[in-house]
Amino acid sequence: MGRPSAPLLDVDRITTAALTLVEESGGFTMPQLAKKLKVSPSSLYNHVSGRDEIVELLRGRAMSEVDMPEVGAPWREALAQIARGYRDSYGRYPRLIPLLTAQAVNSSAAFGMYNTMARILSEAGFVPADVLRIITVLDSYVLGSALDLAAPEAPWETSDEVGAEFRAALDTIARTAGTRAARSEDAFEFGLRALLAGLDPR
Amino acid sequence: MGRPSAPLLDVDRITTAALTLVEESGGFTMPQLAKKLKVSPSSLYNHVSGRDEIVELLRGRAMSEVDMPEVGAPWREALAQIARGYRDSYGRYPRLIPLLTAQAVNSSAAFGMYNTMARILSEAGFVPADVLRIITVLDSYVLGSALDLAAPEAPWETSDEVGAEFRAALDTIARTAGTRAARSEDAFEFGLRALLAGLDPR
Repeated sequence: MGRPSAPLLDVDRITTAALTLVEESGGFTMPQLAKKLKVSPSSLYNHVSGRDEIVELLRGRAMSEVDMPEVGAPWREALAQIARGYRDSYGRYPRLIPLLTAQAVNSSAAFGMYNTMARILSEAGFVPADVLRIITVLDSYVLGSALDLAAPEAPWETSDEVGAEFRAALDTIARTAGTRAARSEDAFEFGLRALLAGLDPR
Repeated sequence: MGRPSAPLLDVDRITTAALTLVEESGGFTMPQLAKKLKVSPSSLYNHVSGRDEIVELLRGRAMSEVDMPEVGAPWREALAQIARGYRDSYGRYPRLIPLLTAQAVNSSAAFGMYNTMARILSEAGFVPADVLRIITVLDSYVLGSALDLAAPEAPWETSDEVGAEFRAALDTIARTAGTRAARSEDAFEFGLRALLAGLDPR
């Protein structure tokens, strides 16, 4: 009486289910993933080699909205543009971040971004050791900022333990930013400008 | 025939069990925690008000190794010292980080650190809106760097997809750093210096 209504298993459905598990619980195992997809664990291995490959598929998903800058843009502006897209793209999946940083990068989308950053920095005159340092520093700043993007509207509770200077700082949230995204964005741009201003080829 | 050997339930045991669950699976629920401690869920509520309070206890644990600088140190050095302890302290528990950033801060240890940072920045001449921005930026940089501290020895796989400039950068890891902690530390100090150099009171 008609064919089964469950959609066929494919890499895209496996990736989406893994992402849902990560956002719900902070992680995933292959048995949990099989249960979520209502398939046997062994059938997952017809599509992926294992958990590591799924983590790399998740990395590709997290990077899907990172745009590369136009060739010829000044190096600070080109890096800022990559950093903005990278933060926005990862900010959609905050709980995925520690899973991605715990595993060595092995995804085409990620290599594409790192290759572009390395080329921009090399052409700006940075030596290879500094290229690696700056890529690492931007990575850390962007991933931390992506977590901040997912922070609550008021990231600090009201408390008697808040001192006068910190209170004055917190009081500016409502006045200058307004929304959660605006506060996070404003701080991100401020720090990105400071960081890039502090870098110069030796 | 002697008393039961299971230790008494207390806040410290609850916090330790929650931390173990987070590091194993990326998160925790009250039923999982009760199961891990071999107690009924309701007995947890004799010691804590709920999951939010446990997350704040975990924040206190994660901050336990952050030292405050001596009064009178130059502001950049004082902030760098806080940032170093903060990174090292959080680097022990990478999977805890997204849980902490997803909840508004409400822990004495954390308020102590933010109060100190706000006081240092105010005394250095920064206006309240910039005090908040710089605290947010340092938070993001430190938490991202704590994740990098937990990254694999070689954070990028060897691949044909690695371009010439990025390859040259990656080749410096073995030469200049050697160990995982040394690579991460070197980049962290480089970025911290650049970031603090890029900040000046208006």
